[in-house]
Amino acid sequence: MAEIKIATLGSHSALQILKGAKEEGFETIVVCRKHQVKPYKMFGVADKIIEINNFSDFWKTEKQLIDENAVLVPHGTLAAYTDVDEIKKSKLMYFGSKDILKWEVSRTKQQHWLKKAGLRQPKIFKRPEDIDRSVIVKFYGAEGGKGYFLANSKEDFDKKIQAHKGKRYILQEYIIGVPVYNHYFQSPMLDRLELMGFDKRYESNVDSLGRISARDQIALKSVDPSYVITGNIPLVVRESFLSEAIDIGENIVKSSQKLAKRGMFGPFCAETIITPEKEIFTFEVSARIVAGTNPYIPTSPYSYMLWDEQMSTGKRIAREIKLAIENNELNKVLG
Amino acid sequence: MAEIKIATLGSHSALQILKGAKEEGFETIVVCRKHQVKPYKMFGVADKIIEINNFSDFWKTEKQLIDENAVLVPHGTLAAYTDVDEIKKSKLMYFGSKDILKWEVSRTKQQHWLKKAGLRQPKIFKRPEDIDRSVIVKFYGAEGGKGYFLANSKEDFDKKIQAHKGKRYILQEYIIGVPVYNHYFQSPMLDRLELMGFDKRYESNVDSLGRISARDQIALKSVDPSYVITGNIPLVVRESFLSEAIDIGENIVKSSQKLAKRGMFGPFCAETIITPEKEIFTFEVSARIVAGTNPYIPTSPYSYMLWDEQMSTGKRIAREIKLAIENNELNKVLG
Amino acid sequence: MAEIKIATLGSHSALQILKGAKEEGFETIVVCRKHQVKPYKMFGVADKIIEINNFSDFWKTEKQLIDENAVLVPHGTLAAYTDVDEIKKSKLMYFGSKDILKWEVSRTKQQHWLKKAGLRQPKIFKRPEDIDRSVIVKFYGAEGGKGYFLANSKEDFDKKIQAHKGKRYILQEYIIGVPVYNHYFQSPMLDRLELMGFDKRYESNVDSLGRISARDQIALKSVDPSYVITGNIPLVVRESFLSEAIDIGENIVKSSQKLAKRGMFGPFCAETIITPEKEIFTFEVSARIVAGTNPYIPTSPYSYMLWDEQMSTGKRIAREIKLAIENNELNKVLG
Repeated sequence: MAEIKIATLGSHSALQILKGAKEEGFETIVVCRKHQVKPYKMFGVADKIIEINNFSDFWKTEKQLIDENAVLVPHGTLAAYTDVDEIKKSKLMYFGSKDILKWEVSRTKQQHWLKKAGLRQPKIFKRPEDIDRSVIVKFYGAEGGKGYFLANSKEDFDKKIQAHKGKRYILQEYIIGVPVYNHYFQSPMLDRLELMGFDKRYESNVDSLGRISARDQIALKSVDPSYVITGNIPLVVRESFLSEAIDIGENIVKSSQKLAKRGMFGPFCAETIITPEKEIFTFEVSARIVAGTNPYIPTSPYSYMLWDEQMSTGKRIAREIKLAIENNELNKVLG
Repeated sequence: MAEIKIATLGSHSALQILKGAKEEGFETIVVCRKHQVKPYKMFGVADKIIEINNFSDFWKTEKQLIDENAVLVPHGTLAAYTDVDEIKKSKLMYFGSKDILKWEVSRTKQQHWLKKAGLRQPKIFKRPEDIDRSVIVKFYGAEGGKGYFLANSKEDFDKKIQAHKGKRYILQEYIIGVPVYNHYFQSPMLDRLELMGFDKRYESNVDSLGRISARDQIALKSVDPSYVITGNIPLVVRESFLSEAIDIGENIVKSSQKLAKRGMFGPFCAETIITPEKEIFTFEVSARIVAGTNPYIPTSPYSYMLWDEQMSTGKRIAREIKLAIENNELNKVLG
Repeated sequence: MAEIKIATLGSHSALQILKGAKEEGFETIVVCRKHQVKPYKMFGVADKIIEINNFSDFWKTEKQLIDENAVLVPHGTLAAYTDVDEIKKSKLMYFGSKDILKWEVSRTKQQHWLKKAGLRQPKIFKRPEDIDRSVIVKFYGAEGGKGYFLANSKEDFDKKIQAHKGKRYILQEYIIGVPVYNHYFQSPMLDRLELMGFDKRYESNVDSLGRISARDQIALKSVDPSYVITGNIPLVVRESFLSEAIDIGENIVKSSQKLAKRGMFGPFCAETIITPEKEIFTFEVSARIVAGTNPYIPTSPYSYMLWDEQMSTGKRIAREIKLAIENNELNKVLG
């Protein structure tokens, strides 16, 4: 076991992944942009730091990582900055399912996946003519939701879209409720789903808008909402919702097994909104560790209950790899 | 000691109660609705799961629980779905005071209790004619505060009440400030009050309203505030408020001792609002464990300081029962 | 080592400081106002409680603390209620730098310090005529930000200032983004900076304004924002911001070394706002432990990663004093 190392890209949830790996006895490697090495040096969680200039240089380190006998633990930054095809053709050991990736990255494919899972989703309107309730107008590729606006009718939409000529958009039913991110771990080694916890994001500027009085917002004129993630806040969910939260996770896993060989496994996240009517809408799934698990170093309430020890998602990943090595089944956790 | 088991109803804070019981070495039983068993199976905190169809079937399991030699730990769901009289006449061992229950469930009786405790409370207006400041109009039995509205004067009230003809309401002074829930534990075994921590609720939809800009809220027209609890967020309170927070807890306990035999004991919660003038208003008391302690598995900052070990409220309850058994004074913690 | 004791003033973050001291094996003393002793008695973190009537009586206990061989750990309440000159002339052992204090307490001096550190700061407008964007008008000495208002132009300012005739104010560029408090520890013994964590404040009433719908805020008429700290909420920050967060801490320390002998050391905090454009503005620095570290008893995610053990800021201070004593270099941590 001493020979397998754990590697990741220096960003997103890398500190957690590397710390968890060290807690489970692994040597660790972080591939990191030069100007971002400080946290990885400060916290001492990486036995080796490989510096690159840009995320797109990551695959240039592939040979070195293979030589180090490293298992790559992917996260959102890897997904965002490198190509699915590059991931798929790589010979580097990869924790998690590669086959599910294409179902995650395409908005249409993902909607198909969630629909197959039988989850409650916001309605999508094909044409402005169809708008019969409040909708949020989302633009493709708008970083942090810049420019997203609400509309109540075709007329309202027509007026407001003027400022966004030529942009591709989707018209999504606007669900009013509180956002909750559900964190799961699907274990191939223990053949079970684990509920790891919940968080809410801390987004700029929407999570400070409420601190500006309505009067002042109107005076400011220019307060446009944006949804740029700046951090995460821990929370627990009403216990009577946990059963449905588990159902959501199980259904996502089950339907993934119909879409991709062996289905999705490892950590994943469902982005939900809970309405005052206690309906849970699922907007998106992330087929990997998300940064919303970072508040839970060294543990979340839920993972502590399950494991009777401190268990972050990073440590959970390393534990799974360790179990696989001990059982001589490393392939079971690699994609 | 091995013979006493700890039982609870599967909801609310049951995971915490059961986990805490296991940490203290008890066998555990959860009585759970069929469609809600998943969390109790997943987290492995219940040695036995008794399935029922509805909460109202709970008392059908009474005989079995008595045969198991179980102490029932009550929580909000039990209080909400079963009758005080059924609790009082039950022969099942019950953790906490039964005598205080009637003072908790009646709004009028509770107000009397809080007044006796000398706590700062929002003013109640008897008639719309008396409105001389902003009031919140609350309807009896309105789940999640549906339809609650604000009014500034009799005229304003008269206009807005039109949409709610025939409903029973109360007119409560509207206090603007931040909500804080104070968690306590009154220990009969150690004869002392313990401050266990604080939380804020995460309510749908009010805790997402602020994420909608004033402009969009007005465009949406239909955004009515509701207060349905979906979760809880941990927080600590300014240290200079702790002395008053302890006073509040002590005064609630003291006045309970005048109302009910032996007074209230075990975990309880005071729902407060802290104003910019640093005044603490107490709105309600819950004479039992509340779900706001769930973020504090395995510990809260405060209980850690007091006990010099991880201590959730669930574990604290089990510790109290253990102390009682060891001292041959189990009756002291039963109602 | 047994002879050195740790003392602090009973308020702010005293519980954390005292608890941390006890965890590191020190005897502890709290100097506390009579009506605020309850928390210090309840949590058992003070071996001795010295009661005073008002914070201003603190220095009357100086001789006793010197006789007890106590190191004073200062915090915000000490800074707010006692005079810098009194601190400087005191013979009591004082943890942290005294020389940096004058740079912290004066608004102008502090702005100079932050500017020297090369940090992004909101623009200050000298005259209403210069207003070319949204500004926040802040009054000197306005407790909790009472009366602060926003203005978009000279005209707007002229109109709104009428209600505040004769008050001294500053005109600060209004930055819309989420507030984040960065906690650091500069260690003279290990000669390094440590990132201890992050929090957001819980302020009355601004952190409940968002729970009032725009419609109701407008109906209430009188909702003026205020920023009175009532508590703190834990959070983690997006990992890609950590490198800049570390830079901010390092630059504050470096520039402090040019302003004051040996510069600032021990715990400190940078008050920041992160905008949707991912720019981090630094508004203020506190050259000592802040109450935003209180959620992190017994540990924060970051200090846990760094130390591989639970580490609050209070414990970290005591650890530093212990290291200094063991190395016979106590002077290195005293100001």
